[in-house]
Amino acid sequence: MKIDPTAPLHPDEVLAHALADAAAAHSLRHFRTPLEVIAKADQSPVTQADRAAETAMRECLAARCPADGIYGEEHGSRQLDARRVWVLDPIDGTRSFITGSPLWGTLIALLEDRRLRLGLIDMPVLRERWIGVQGRATCNGQRVHASGCTEVARARIVTTSPDIFGVPDSADWQAFDRLSRGCAMRRFGGDCYGYAQLAGGTIDLVVEAGLQPYDYLGPAGLIEAAGGLITDWQGRPLGLDSDGRVIAAATPELHAAALKVLRD
Amino acid sequence: MKIDPTAPLHPDEVLAHALADAAAAHSLRHFRTPLEVIAKADQSPVTQADRAAETAMRECLAARCPADGIYGEEHGSRQLDARRVWVLDPIDGTRSFITGSPLWGTLIALLEDRRLRLGLIDMPVLRERWIGVQGRATCNGQRVHASGCTEVARARIVTTSPDIFGVPDSADWQAFDRLSRGCAMRRFGGDCYGYAQLAGGTIDLVVEAGLQPYDYLGPAGLIEAAGGLITDWQGRPLGLDSDGRVIAAATPELHAAALKVLRD
Repeated sequence: MKIDPTAPLHPDEVLAHALADAAAAHSLRHFRTPLEVIAKADQSPVTQADRAAETAMRECLAARCPADGIYGEEHGSRQLDARRVWVLDPIDGTRSFITGSPLWGTLIALLEDRRLRLGLIDMPVLRERWIGVQGRATCNGQRVHASGCTEVARARIVTTSPDIFGVPDSADWQAFDRLSRGCAMRRFGGDCYGYAQLAGGTIDLVVEAGLQPYDYLGPAGLIEAAGGLITDWQGRPLGLDSDGRVIAAATPELHAAALKVLRD
Repeated sequence: MKIDPTAPLHPDEVLAHALADAAAAHSLRHFRTPLEVIAKADQSPVTQADRAAETAMRECLAARCPADGIYGEEHGSRQLDARRVWVLDPIDGTRSFITGSPLWGTLIALLEDRRLRLGLIDMPVLRERWIGVQGRATCNGQRVHASGCTEVARARIVTTSPDIFGVPDSADWQAFDRLSRGCAMRRFGGDCYGYAQLAGGTIDLVVEAGLQPYDYLGPAGLIEAAGGLITDWQGRPLGLDSDGRVIAAATPELHAAALKVLRD
């Protein structure tokens, strides 16, 4: 379904597009060029591309809405007690970025009074911009919707890597392994792209652990607008203080069934 | 490095481009459309997109070089005793294709007197065509080369999924797990794209198992032309009768070091 091109975009959506454009200008310029990779305190890698892309988004926010708060992956937080808080991940999938895979993206979420108002996944190499706002999810202006899948046995599930579940054979990995082996198909890889696939109806479940708020809040805003359900592994809504375990499902029925297997 | 655009392409390369174009016309038309997924005898999935894309390549070969043999994933073999044999995989990564991921490709190899003469990985959604012929590897006409990585501890390694190594905790998985945990970075997902990344210098090792000749011969022709080394897990050259265990490395030194860990 094509969105009416004459309908004006909501100002928050206009701003989110501007942020994604600002980030992409920097990330694409560094993609597949020699980069110094620095290990952060949590051992996750960062490059000048991540830092420059987030700086560009923060400058844009400082100019246009200086009263809003920011929760960013690379340059920290400010004004988290503001009514509106932007959550920024300039390059989700830095390991993909470093290894020349196109499956990395920029993630943006807007929280208003601590509730998700907007979520965006931008895939600069693929030229796909997925955005969810006001109950409407689109990819490049085309309306998208999660699948109608309600059964684990029919579900296509994806996660980035066994390694995100912690030490080998951790309880979290065993839970994912049990659930995913009961699905129709399981896939690895993709970082944030799995959430876009779920919003587009080609993946039915995404189950991950070890995530940070900037990893899951952008995807969460998209998935909720696409008709899916995304929570932590206890079934609670996601926020800035969630524990990093995420389950996203195409339907409430699938979410409930998958959560049951995950927690058994 | 840009290839001299005035230099004529070798006739085999011209034909390989025509085959890839023919396959892409069919695969792209079906991508992200509703598809009936059929489980083959080996439980791998196939769709009308795979079959139509291979048929288009076979018609092209029948018209232009009817004496050549064909080894295809979907429609079987003919004239395998011919001096020249084309090895065709219309959609490598059918699971990626089905789940809306762009990381699926068309693989083409040409064997002449049982030796690899040409290898091609076409990524239609990414609009990247990787081709290796006569010791020259290119992506969209730009010369590419494997990295100079010689040490396991500095290597970036990728494999499609833990599931390709057979039953949980198989000896093959344990060997991959041991090797990959000693690398600088390990990644999952990507199907054939890992081999393209290796040819482009952004991945240093690809280790897989359970592959068929149409899965590894196209990538092998590309990687050899890009300066890498690709063999089975015994270090033997790949052919139509290999056992499906594949190790590709950016340099002979890295290949030898990785093989040692794999076989320990």
